[in-house]
Amino acid sequence: MYYYKEELINVIEPDKPDPAAAKVLQEALGGQFGEMRTMMQYSFQSSNFRGKDKQFRDLIRGVFLEEIAHVELVQNTINQLLNESGLSSPGNAGTDAAPIDEAVKHGNPHHFIMGAKSSLPIDAGGNPWNGSWVYSHGNLIADLLNNVVLESTGVLQKTRIYEMSSNKTFRETLGFLIVRDNAHQNAFAKALETLGVDWGKTFPVPNYDINKYPECRKYVDLGYHNVQFNFRLDETRIGEIFQGESPSRNSGPLSVTPPPRGFPVPQLPDMPNEHSPGIADMLR
Amino acid sequence: MYYYKEELINVIEPDKPDPAAAKVLQEALGGQFGEMRTMMQYSFQSSNFRGKDKQFRDLIRGVFLEEIAHVELVQNTINQLLNESGLSSPGNAGTDAAPIDEAVKHGNPHHFIMGAKSSLPIDAGGNPWNGSWVYSHGNLIADLLNNVVLESTGVLQKTRIYEMSSNKTFRETLGFLIVRDNAHQNAFAKALETLGVDWGKTFPVPNYDINKYPECRKYVDLGYHNVQFNFRLDETRIGEIFQGESPSRNSGPLSVTPPPRGFPVPQLPDMPNEHSPGIADMLR
Amino acid sequence: MYYYKEELINVIEPDKPDPAAAKVLQEALGGQFGEMRTMMQYSFQSSNFRGKDKQFRDLIRGVFLEEIAHVELVQNTINQLLNESGLSSPGNAGTDAAPIDEAVKHGNPHHFIMGAKSSLPIDAGGNPWNGSWVYSHGNLIADLLNNVVLESTGVLQKTRIYEMSSNKTFRETLGFLIVRDNAHQNAFAKALETLGVDWGKTFPVPNYDINKYPECRKYVDLGYHNVQFNFRLDETRIGEIFQGESPSRNSGPLSVTPPPRGFPVPQLPDMPNEHSPGIADMLR
Amino acid sequence: MYYYKEELINVIEPDKPDPAAAKVLQEALGGQFGEMRTMMQYSFQSSNFRGKDKQFRDLIRGVFLEEIAHVELVQNTINQLLNESGLSSPGNAGTDAAPIDEAVKHGNPHHFIMGAKSSLPIDAGGNPWNGSWVYSHGNLIADLLNNVVLESTGVLQKTRIYEMSSNKTFRETLGFLIVRDNAHQNAFAKALETLGVDWGKTFPVPNYDINKYPECRKYVDLGYHNVQFNFRLDETRIGEIFQGESPSRNSGPLSVTPPPRGFPVPQLPDMPNEHSPGIADMLR
Amino acid sequence: MYYYKEELINVIEPDKPDPAAAKVLQEALGGQFGEMRTMMQYSFQSSNFRGKDKQFRDLIRGVFLEEIAHVELVQNTINQLLNESGLSSPGNAGTDAAPIDEAVKHGNPHHFIMGAKSSLPIDAGGNPWNGSWVYSHGNLIADLLNNVVLESTGVLQKTRIYEMSSNKTFRETLGFLIVRDNAHQNAFAKALETLGVDWGKTFPVPNYDINKYPECRKYVDLGYHNVQFNFRLDETRIGEIFQGESPSRNSGPLSVTPPPRGFPVPQLPDMPNEHSPGIADMLR
Amino acid sequence: MYYYKEELINVIEPDKPDPAAAKVLQEALGGQFGEMRTMMQYSFQSSNFRGKDKQFRDLIRGVFLEEIAHVELVQNTINQLLNESGLSSPGNAGTDAAPIDEAVKHGNPHHFIMGAKSSLPIDAGGNPWNGSWVYSHGNLIADLLNNVVLESTGVLQKTRIYEMSSNKTFRETLGFLIVRDNAHQNAFAKALETLGVDWGKTFPVPNYDINKYPECRKYVDLGYHNVQFNFRLDETRIGEIFQGESPSRNSGPLSVTPPPRGFPVPQLPDMPNEHSPGIADMLR
Repeated sequence: MYYYKEELINVIEPDKPDPAAAKVLQEALGGQFGEMRTMMQYSFQSSNFRGKDKQFRDLIRGVFLEEIAHVELVQNTINQLLNESGLSSPGNAGTDAAPIDEAVKHGNPHHFIMGAKSSLPIDAGGNPWNGSWVYSHGNLIADLLNNVVLESTGVLQKTRIYEMSSNKTFRETLGFLIVRDNAHQNAFAKALETLGVDWGKTFPVPNYDINKYPECRKYVDLGYHNVQFNFRLDETRIGEIFQGESPSRNSGPLSVTPPPRGFPVPQLPDMPNEHSPGIADMLR
Repeated sequence: MYYYKEELINVIEPDKPDPAAAKVLQEALGGQFGEMRTMMQYSFQSSNFRGKDKQFRDLIRGVFLEEIAHVELVQNTINQLLNESGLSSPGNAGTDAAPIDEAVKHGNPHHFIMGAKSSLPIDAGGNPWNGSWVYSHGNLIADLLNNVVLESTGVLQKTRIYEMSSNKTFRETLGFLIVRDNAHQNAFAKALETLGVDWGKTFPVPNYDINKYPECRKYVDLGYHNVQFNFRLDETRIGEIFQGESPSRNSGPLSVTPPPRGFPVPQLPDMPNEHSPGIADMLR
Repeated sequence: MYYYKEELINVIEPDKPDPAAAKVLQEALGGQFGEMRTMMQYSFQSSNFRGKDKQFRDLIRGVFLEEIAHVELVQNTINQLLNESGLSSPGNAGTDAAPIDEAVKHGNPHHFIMGAKSSLPIDAGGNPWNGSWVYSHGNLIADLLNNVVLESTGVLQKTRIYEMSSNKTFRETLGFLIVRDNAHQNAFAKALETLGVDWGKTFPVPNYDINKYPECRKYVDLGYHNVQFNFRLDETRIGEIFQGESPSRNSGPLSVTPPPRGFPVPQLPDMPNEHSPGIADMLR
Repeated sequence: MYYYKEELINVIEPDKPDPAAAKVLQEALGGQFGEMRTMMQYSFQSSNFRGKDKQFRDLIRGVFLEEIAHVELVQNTINQLLNESGLSSPGNAGTDAAPIDEAVKHGNPHHFIMGAKSSLPIDAGGNPWNGSWVYSHGNLIADLLNNVVLESTGVLQKTRIYEMSSNKTFRETLGFLIVRDNAHQNAFAKALETLGVDWGKTFPVPNYDINKYPECRKYVDLGYHNVQFNFRLDETRIGEIFQGESPSRNSGPLSVTPPPRGFPVPQLPDMPNEHSPGIADMLR
Repeated sequence: MYYYKEELINVIEPDKPDPAAAKVLQEALGGQFGEMRTMMQYSFQSSNFRGKDKQFRDLIRGVFLEEIAHVELVQNTINQLLNESGLSSPGNAGTDAAPIDEAVKHGNPHHFIMGAKSSLPIDAGGNPWNGSWVYSHGNLIADLLNNVVLESTGVLQKTRIYEMSSNKTFRETLGFLIVRDNAHQNAFAKALETLGVDWGKTFPVPNYDINKYPECRKYVDLGYHNVQFNFRLDETRIGEIFQGESPSRNSGPLSVTPPPRGFPVPQLPDMPNEHSPGIADMLR
Repeated sequence: MYYYKEELINVIEPDKPDPAAAKVLQEALGGQFGEMRTMMQYSFQSSNFRGKDKQFRDLIRGVFLEEIAHVELVQNTINQLLNESGLSSPGNAGTDAAPIDEAVKHGNPHHFIMGAKSSLPIDAGGNPWNGSWVYSHGNLIADLLNNVVLESTGVLQKTRIYEMSSNKTFRETLGFLIVRDNAHQNAFAKALETLGVDWGKTFPVPNYDINKYPECRKYVDLGYHNVQFNFRLDETRIGEIFQGESPSRNSGPLSVTPPPRGFPVPQLPDMPNEHSPGIADMLR
């Protein structure tokens, strides 16, 4: 069973609204290599696990637990990027000569139609998240290799998305996730190492220079690329695998630690003009 | 952030394998009104919430937390129904004259191809779970009404699935979920009641006679239709709504309680012939 | 605007339930060459029509109007095939030893889960109807050729579905639709003839012997393969095209006539055990 | 069976082309809460209806009939917004230095590729309409609640789309549909009222101020929010439900009336350069 | 079996990057009437062919072989349009104040996220290619008519896409494909002619004036609209059909010829900042 | 450009029809890890390749070329399994009392509806092939790792499908493909070895005992698990990678060889009752 404290795993850095950034950041939430995919993939691999070598299940499940918090972090980041973007007055016919609002033109129109400027279970192209992207092969090596590819591609795509806007809300979340995807890449690569693979200089994929990403460097200084946060309230054998030397070129010792201190969930203002929540008259 | 104890929210009742039952039970996991939908819908509605009336967010989030455990419960139930079903020896050409295995004929072939007889993020018809089924309208009344429909249809479909097999593993999980969906229906109906709706004799939907479902009756006797389990490690305002008289015909007082004692996660045996996990030689 | 009389375009022939037949007949409703596709394709081609040569629009719209009635006919046929099929008593745990009901095994489980044994907007494989199958090319010749292929494939597939069950409810509807698809094939082939094509002995596609289908022969004797029913309450130029000799090998003169006398919409019984409609206690 | 008069249910107000507005208006046609969904949902609920309480079926069917006309209205509105937008001369290589046309950049490229600047069965994000969005639960209360959510969300989304452009063609159609969705919300809310629900001040959802939408006010003055148009050529029991006081805060008596006088279907010009219809040389 | 020489079927004309053109050109690759569809449709029709009249299979297969080369041509064209577009320096936070890159705004963000500025199996709207668009009806006339529609719509859509940018890389490939789609339209129309159809002045569809497309005229001068390239290393009966007078208004004799001399596959530069290929340190 | 000789890459072993086997074998054609996926994935990775290290491109392209032949092999195998299955006489109303044909019940109904008992671009569950399953990450290590997972899962799933029927047509094709997927797994694992990875005893995945699969053993004896067939008509640098010791436990030297001698493409009989091809009267 799953327990919760209302705290985000990282800070939502304030900055101006940026609906075009919100649009592309959806990839990190509902894309093929986004947090919904990692969350569900590790959920299925955990429940479908067979046999007694539960140190592997505990590793997969440990990453799963963090991914639920990542989903929440990206949802909140997207909401922050959308908040106060675009037009604000309803029924303004005749007072606005522009054929279409700029925010809508370069953002995702569904962000303005479906909810009150809020996150959706879709990717950067607007395609809904799809269960066929979740892989639980029933073979531990295939599952671990697939997870390595998933985390590697996660970093790869996030470094590309990072270039698309210099908005601080956007880049802070991406920087944090890049470093954590790196740690999860280490986790699955290390698990394969315990099964006999020597990765040489293969990892991290992609071969990025952390010094170019100031937001990442901060988290690397905290050692976040080499730790696994432990969200278990009971015992876990994750440390049997996530220990010793990192399987990546960047080296350093792996260790299991408590999660970061939590960060506040931003409170979004009422938007009566968007009918959100739309209950003012009733309650007060 | 999300914390975990390796305990299921209900028991996995042992019985014989039943792959055809596993096939239809997928609806309760990856169908439009299954647990993945409820989990993700309440996740998005929680993060996308606006304004200060957080008793509503705490209610939605409270149900969300339980749904993560429901996903895990149904995954484990499907795995139990598939375990030891079908053929067992690989490469048996020439020793088996049947054109196709009975288990595969009436089950879902993907259960036998994708993983080692294990759960998938699909519905009873084999369609992958789809993000377009998640609704977060950005209007509290529309969201609550949608959630009432979701939980009502959840019960409705589960009572129909229940008829399809008398397998005990299958019916025990369905019975538990029917009662819990009823409690969640009460939660969202009650929230609308606090906004001024008087439901009369409308609920529960469907209008079922609990005496006909022995598995349900047991949980009703425990009062599970009128309680909301609390998975929060911090404060929650859920009790501001989930209190007083039930909005349903079945009446009784609503209350917030700790979750059930946990139940063990079944350990599935290694299946070397399915290459699951397939690491025997390496580790030992 | 669209007006309605509660009458079906053909009879629902009574016979025993046959859920496996209902499953495959879904192809004629929600399949790529089913009635929902023809209805929506001609709806879009009608509204998107350009220019003054409105005899072509009136032809396309005329077929569109009939397809709405075809959708209704197939929905009712599927409902009749499902009615009283499968299990009937809810909550019967312990009294039924069969692992899965026969009806569910060879039918579509969604017929028993989604509604109360009723039709769905899906195909014979359970895939939901999809808007990407609707073609409105914006070029009259391409549109007409596409419509010829659509109606030809409609007949072709229905003659294959016809073989799958000898149920009378099933075959009566298929027989009627085969003959009507033939008439619509004639309509679009004739429209291309007015633009200069000489079809030789190409049509009908497929090259079927009507004498082998007793249900069809009856409608051919009524001349239904060479008439276009007129559902317009105002003037239409459809007769400028749908006239003269049939473009098919089967020859005969084309003519526009009033629709068939209507047939009653069957009244399906309440199914309290399926919670359908489930309002008995409230209303009376 | 369905009969037709070539008249639109509302006027197509002329204004300049606006392909970006056409793109977002697709949501009202092929989106999850658009007119194709309402049309097909009520079509399935009508045919799948069980039992003798046909006043409910007549209500659902009555709304279905109007939705067919709404589909036609939105198709024509989109076509008007696209007509004469974008580039006009084919094969103009070398005479145009711009890398991409402005109309295409902010419109939906499929509007310019698939047909000759015309409507498509897709949503504002370009996703094709999907049958899995149609709900016919086989339980009258669940169906009616679902319909209330559908119509409420229909209004909600249209008020958001309305903000995106001040184009008159665009806003006139949206204003009309907002008021009619409101009437349909009243219809389904009233049906639940006859089953015992007292809605208090819940409706309309969203809680919008009609005075802010000049296009809407006009139709409210005509009473369109409290009438149900009757498209039946035979008897209907719709008036047994749609009568008495409105279930919404805005009050007023409900009544069944004849449809509005019809409006002309605009004739779109030939576009030889788009090969639409492309038959000039052949016919004349 | 399939053999290969690393040569493109047409030249990649150099010009500036144009990511918005790359976005819309995806329709010709992964759209419903794009080269992946033609390739797979003719692949299935070839393998599923029945009977002894193999001249028809050889015709279909002959076109299939060319389509594999068309897929490769469009992939390379899209890559050329994307190459060196957009931002180039990774991790440039703080040095770039723009909220979103222009290339991303008007291009497809997936082009910049999924790969290193490279082609994808999607259409101009970002929808993934879908197998349900492939038709192999099992009736030769229906298959040939479907292929005629496919090739006609292929030309029609490409003439519309052509207008969207004057980029030379873009238009050269489109011009070549328009002429080749025309030849394939002739191939299938001719096959139907051998079965008795007289097309009159129907073809080509659309009725375009080749003189307006300078890129096309060049290929028409080479006779490419009336030849079928032969990629068979063994005997083929294609010439039994593809011979004699063209079935189109543009007339001329049909003939089978060797493929064009090949053109070099452009070498795209390493993009270390996109981590593509990302192996520099390892290999050298 | 691509050249062709009408020869299959392996024999179609004759046996009785087995439509249920045809249904599950579709996974190897149109499933997520089937031959259409491998073909398209390597096609995109080949065209999207960047930089001068073309030995990697030649390796990927070399496997791509073989996959086109695999697609053709599986299409033909499915057709053989369907040929002469099920009912044969059209229009036999009244002479057949069975409610549904056995072949249809346990096969895929689309095999009997869509074409004349022939292959489709779908998976074992009937879902259409989808372009979102194709990965071309633009990072060579990520691409190679993804390809290793793809080929490993390909073997894994085929060993599971193999158990489902002892039909010889079915198992011969599966046995051949299992061995070839193994060779391709070696190819991509070896490519990663040249970049520094030491795989230890990881491969092959799954860890299967070849002696249990008589059909496989035959191809292993021919050395097919350690060779790469060369379909290039020009030079290729594939041998720079595919050489030396196998990266798998099963060891042996890797080498590049000519393709197998070809096997005849079976000629399927005309099926006039299925209207396939349906042109008899016209041609003769």
